Amino acid sequence: MEEKIQYKIDHKTKPKGSLGILEELGKKICLLQNTLSPEINNPTMLVFAADHGLADEGVSSCPKEMTYQMVKNFVKGGAAINVFCKQNGFNIRVVDAGVDYDFDKDLDIIHTKLGYGTKNILHEPAMTKDLCKKAMQIAAEIVREEHRKGSNLLAVGEMGIGNTSNSSLIMNKIIGTDIADCVGVGAGHTSDGYKHKLDILTRASKLYDVNEPIDVLATYGGFEIAMMCGAMLEAKELGMIVLVDGFICTAAFLVAYELNKSILKNTIFCHKSEEKGHQIMLDYLGVEGLVDLKFRLGEGTGSAVALPLIQASVNFINQMSSFEEAEVFCTA
Amino acid sequence: MEEKIQYKIDHKTKPKGSLGILEELGKKICLLQNTLSPEINNPTMLVFAADHGLADEGVSSCPKEMTYQMVKNFVKGGAAINVFCKQNGFNIRVVDAGVDYDFDKDLDIIHTKLGYGTKNILHEPAMTKDLCKKAMQIAAEIVREEHRKGSNLLAVGEMGIGNTSNSSLIMNKIIGTDIADCVGVGAGHTSDGYKHKLDILTRASKLYDVNEPIDVLATYGGFEIAMMCGAMLEAKELGMIVLVDGFICTAAFLVAYELNKSILKNTIFCHKSEEKGHQIMLDYLGVEGLVDLKFRLGEGTGSAVALPLIQASVNFINQMSSFEEAEVFCTA
Repeated sequence: MEEKIQYKIDHKTKPKGSLGILEELGKKICLLQNTLSPEINNPTMLVFAADHGLADEGVSSCPKEMTYQMVKNFVKGGAAINVFCKQNGFNIRVVDAGVDYDFDKDLDIIHTKLGYGTKNILHEPAMTKDLCKKAMQIAAEIVREEHRKGSNLLAVGEMGIGNTSNSSLIMNKIIGTDIADCVGVGAGHTSDGYKHKLDILTRASKLYDVNEPIDVLATYGGFEIAMMCGAMLEAKELGMIVLVDGFICTAAFLVAYELNKSILKNTIFCHKSEEKGHQIMLDYLGVEGLVDLKFRLGEGTGSAVALPLIQASVNFINQMSSFEEAEVFCTA
Repeated sequence: MEEKIQYKIDHKTKPKGSLGILEELGKKICLLQNTLSPEINNPTMLVFAADHGLADEGVSSCPKEMTYQMVKNFVKGGAAINVFCKQNGFNIRVVDAGVDYDFDKDLDIIHTKLGYGTKNILHEPAMTKDLCKKAMQIAAEIVREEHRKGSNLLAVGEMGIGNTSNSSLIMNKIIGTDIADCVGVGAGHTSDGYKHKLDILTRASKLYDVNEPIDVLATYGGFEIAMMCGAMLEAKELGMIVLVDGFICTAAFLVAYELNKSILKNTIFCHKSEEKGHQIMLDYLGVEGLVDLKFRLGEGTGSAVALPLIQASVNFINQMSSFEEAEVFCTA
């Protein structure tokens, strides 16, 4: 099949390889779907939101209340992720994984609250292993439902004040990178704010000696991160294309990858984040970000804006003429 | 106005600056259109095609006949540029600037043939200065027509076997870069093919002592390159957004820039090409490519795939809620 795909790509009316990364992407999707006519159907964006006990330590430059305020903004359609999803044809679903706020049950949210935020990691693990597994299972069920409705592409995004800190800690434990190289400015930090954050995370990283991926996720993760991880793993099982966004999403992916390395075959890394540790994560995985727009926003925005490029990689395979069809003869 | 635009961008529900390059792009379009509500209307892709006398010297890895064959492919909708224009809402027009072939007059082509290809630069200048100016005027008229029909964004693309060679020569004369650093592999060359190309272009570059931009364009350009240059200059006069694609398009832009440096305010450089000299051109202009997908195709494909990112930069300004509207309070 790989040979047939390459033949089809090489006989399109263009010099061999001249569509660069789009040729690699298109081939990857063909291989995943075992077809010469790949498709992207009903792309799904799941935005998981949760709060974090560690936010009490002032690791973020934003107040914790922003988590629930932004969830309301998502529901009203006013956030960046809404605008980009609408533009590019993503079906967006917002999931309350564990926000410290009681949302009106009538809001268009998937209500799966696992708690009013996680525990403060400086005092105890973020969540129990059982709760972590439950988070992953709930997310898997949401993905199965979207897949049943006809979606074959999953992107995950997040909202959770403090969650770059969790992601730095997960990175530190999974990759083994020195904590200082895992910690960046997040959504925005002064130099004092950064020093404080690094101090807190250095302490947190020394508190628990965990190695198993699930233990790392339960101890240092968040409800939304655990759900993102579970969602991506389920999407892999279902043969879906998985889009990974920036730093936090890649932290969740690191755990998924340790649990099932073949998930790489399904995955497209959409955006190289400005967050310091992200390139180290991508290097660890041996991958590159599709675009580098200097985002440091999260929500899934990097994946949302990148979708048309991925669509283009499918379209050229399906829609371009071959040399024979077009009566074009090139030797290059 | 600049302050008002920045205020609007900074009060969207996201940390300041967190949409990175899209914020810069959105601001640029606001400034160009002198508005807080920027718009992209009826984006136009003009693909100019022409042949080159220099192609007789074997500077390209493709046969000259590919120019007219690909024009027919454009008309049938089977080329990469067709697929990407269709996907992203570009109105594509194909222009016969000077192809060495008699097209059926019924084909959906703008028939403005200025000759059956340019002269062989090794023997005489590619075209006269008068013909060069005529090419620019014809292209300007085409742009005015598209603008009258409601387009406010122009992208230009090209097809012309041998035209990376012309672009290398223009670059050499305008920027003064050593010819060896201006010459790359084009659509694809073996190491012997490259050596031959470099030899021919080294000789060509020494033949004419031209300095004025128009003289450089007439002597070393091509009909399609002159038309691209004229089209972009007219789009600038009309206040349109100008999208620049890869190496050949940027060579045409270099001439336009020397004639009217303020065109930079209108221009978005969409794609960093794989062609060796392109980064030097971008550095000379002090700009960066929006995406880097390792294309080496031309046709305008880099601009065609980048449009959704530019659209996103406009959409977030128009559609995202402000902190006040969304009742979100962030200190970052």
